[in-house]
Amino acid sequence: MKTTKKIMLPENEMPTQWYNIVADMKNKPLPMLNPATKQPLKPEEMEALFAKGAVEQEFSQERYIDIPEEVQTLYKIYRPTPLVRASGLEKALDTPAKIYFKNESVSPVGSHKLNSAIPQAYYNKIQGIKHITTETGAGQWGSALSIACQHFGLDLQVFMVKVSYDQKPYRKSVMNTYGAQVFASPSDQTEIGRRLRRKFPNTSGTLGMAISEAVEVAIKNPDTRYSLGSVLNHVILHQTIIGLEAEKQLEMTGDYPDVVIGCFGGGSNFSGIAFPFLRHNLTEGKTTRFVAAEPASCPKLTRGEFNYDFGDTEGFTPLIPMYTLGHDFEPADIHAGGLRYHGAGSIVSQLIKDNLIEAVDIKQLDSFAAGVLFAKVEGIIPAPESTHAISAAIQEALKAKEEGKEKVILFNLSGHGLIDMASYDKYLSGQLGNYEVPQELIDKNIAKLEKLV
Amino acid sequence: MKTTKKIMLPENEMPTQWYNIVADMKNKPLPMLNPATKQPLKPEEMEALFAKGAVEQEFSQERYIDIPEEVQTLYKIYRPTPLVRASGLEKALDTPAKIYFKNESVSPVGSHKLNSAIPQAYYNKIQGIKHITTETGAGQWGSALSIACQHFGLDLQVFMVKVSYDQKPYRKSVMNTYGAQVFASPSDQTEIGRRLRRKFPNTSGTLGMAISEAVEVAIKNPDTRYSLGSVLNHVILHQTIIGLEAEKQLEMTGDYPDVVIGCFGGGSNFSGIAFPFLRHNLTEGKTTRFVAAEPASCPKLTRGEFNYDFGDTEGFTPLIPMYTLGHDFEPADIHAGGLRYHGAGSIVSQLIKDNLIEAVDIKQLDSFAAGVLFAKVEGIIPAPESTHAISAAIQEALKAKEEGKEKVILFNLSGHGLIDMASYDKYLSGQLGNYEVPQELIDKNIAKLEKLV
Repeated sequence: MKTTKKIMLPENEMPTQWYNIVADMKNKPLPMLNPATKQPLKPEEMEALFAKGAVEQEFSQERYIDIPEEVQTLYKIYRPTPLVRASGLEKALDTPAKIYFKNESVSPVGSHKLNSAIPQAYYNKIQGIKHITTETGAGQWGSALSIACQHFGLDLQVFMVKVSYDQKPYRKSVMNTYGAQVFASPSDQTEIGRRLRRKFPNTSGTLGMAISEAVEVAIKNPDTRYSLGSVLNHVILHQTIIGLEAEKQLEMTGDYPDVVIGCFGGGSNFSGIAFPFLRHNLTEGKTTRFVAAEPASCPKLTRGEFNYDFGDTEGFTPLIPMYTLGHDFEPADIHAGGLRYHGAGSIVSQLIKDNLIEAVDIKQLDSFAAGVLFAKVEGIIPAPESTHAISAAIQEALKAKEEGKEKVILFNLSGHGLIDMASYDKYLSGQLGNYEVPQELIDKNIAKLEKLV
Repeated sequence: MKTTKKIMLPENEMPTQWYNIVADMKNKPLPMLNPATKQPLKPEEMEALFAKGAVEQEFSQERYIDIPEEVQTLYKIYRPTPLVRASGLEKALDTPAKIYFKNESVSPVGSHKLNSAIPQAYYNKIQGIKHITTETGAGQWGSALSIACQHFGLDLQVFMVKVSYDQKPYRKSVMNTYGAQVFASPSDQTEIGRRLRRKFPNTSGTLGMAISEAVEVAIKNPDTRYSLGSVLNHVILHQTIIGLEAEKQLEMTGDYPDVVIGCFGGGSNFSGIAFPFLRHNLTEGKTTRFVAAEPASCPKLTRGEFNYDFGDTEGFTPLIPMYTLGHDFEPADIHAGGLRYHGAGSIVSQLIKDNLIEAVDIKQLDSFAAGVLFAKVEGIIPAPESTHAISAAIQEALKAKEEGKEKVILFNLSGHGLIDMASYDKYLSGQLGNYEVPQELIDKNIAKLEKLV
């Protein structure tokens, strides 16, 4: 049979349920804690901050959860996304491995983030909420939530990490075009923002700080809810549409992955592609490997500690059981702004702890080298975040070559880099470097965590 | 039956031939002339400049021309592209019209230009050519040819119109990432470029100037060929894949277009979507209308004259029978750089002359207003060029509403605007204006044409 380059799933075969891996985990993720009482967080405590529909999913133990029909209809604007055989990359690496990628860059906003933005906006809408706040790193999440809020008639305030706001000015323009308000974080819009600006006048901002700002606005305004683009269980849940589709598409080729790879910030795109396959490891004894590719400059999975920590800088969020570098860890100004987050979601963290998934750290220059190679041989310029997954996939493909094995490698192309060209410019002109995180800094941050619980 | 939002054509139903409208034209386009002899240009005279495969197609009278298998394989990286029911736009306009658009923005470079870049690079490759030169306006064509040349191992020099080079710095980065060399035109790389810089030190550049530069390099280097992204018959031919697919996709819905719309620069995306439908007007008496949407600031179809003219500023090209504003017309610095061209291709010009297609001029502010509305209701931020087609489609949909008619409107979304966000920024902050072309300027330019033939 002639191998086709892209494997399309017919629209009527798009999955109609998300997959909740919690149902199949032997060791369930530890509960989030109320930081005041140190007791497990109750759903009703989360409802001041999040839409009820999202909170329900956050605590759900159901294996499959129906995708609302209206969400399915909106998904179909860009879904099912193509599964692509990376034949150009295989040839360039001269590897016996078969490399596939799921192309989430085809969504109108250019990344997988819309998969969760649509249901989150939907659950707010049906609850009668009118105002939403959020944070964004690279701007992929902010763009996605902007168009979803525009569709449902919700207004949106986005706190965008300052370094990304400066590095990617056109991300702001995209959000503005979709009708959202965007502030560089830390901003002068919130108390915590103003305090951070006084305390650290030269800060580049972090996702943790931006989350604090967005949460502050939601807490102070009872008609406003907050929305998060990664980390939490319900976000991960929404992203499983990626892997569920990929599974059906791989079936069409007769292949099954030996290794599944995603880049790693808070865990949403990685979990989205990995969990539907990990399900078969957990329930049927399959032995696929799962590799989370994080930046060496923000190495929470490879060098962080499993502990309770806040999701934000200020300590507004519940305590989350996570692999973390400490909530006030400020990563270097790397260009993959979406991966500059100090912690990992509770499900992924438990799975790492139980050795059910692996992590690898990728240096910034290696990630861009992988990105440029991929652009040349596959045509798509990947987002700086996604280049981490590509770099890890290349490592696996070269290992397969050394071992002479016809391994099947699947990775997630979480987004394209067309609004990140300033970063490519800097890379191509030799202005980017690698960043090592000193061990003392990690140790110091982690020592502080002991006091939290 | 439930209407789906996007209509996908299975990969194995992608057309395997391009459609050459010349075969069905009663009045054939006039021949191009050798400017020295004033005699019809012979194929062999074009071969110093273009690949043989392209030249053969330029002169072909065959109705259908096979798409080489290797080109088909590469097309399938992104083709068939979706046909989309613009239900969001219909709702926003409250129109009884059904609006469809062909989404060419899904190609890896974000526009339809790859449809011709792939075969042009292919024909050069099989001829053993190693070096290519080209011009680019907005950068869509340059990006497309960059990746096609990268694939076939050809090196590429791109002369990019200075105003676009400055307005869209990241377009250059895209081409660089794909391995091409990019110069702002007029440049110091060519004699004509240096002369133009001396004569007009403040010029923003034009497509005509950039073509002169690229052609000069090809003329002076016998191992180099030139490649053009629009205007010529073989380019138009390659783009008919758009309309041929759209025809099959519309058949799946049971609809047939009453009006087909494309934005208009040199004619490639307009012709690509229009000609396969126009075929049925010419051969079966269908009465579909065809509307070319040009910028009011470069109104060659609505206010230019049908005459022989050069394709470039310097007069390096053959004389082309075209609707033109004169080859030294310098349009205002509008943000739809891809439409800033003084002339129309010879086939389109003949069809306009014979009243088989219509033209409409769109003001810059109307085009951006249409673009922002489209982004909000359909999710995709359109290229500034494509917004002209959207604006014309909106006009038709509002007319249908006035008349209470359920018209079927089809337009081509030639590309997305994600690398054009600086233009949207300017529009949203009120920094853009409209540009009127004084009639004296057009008259003066056109008077000069009399001497050419």
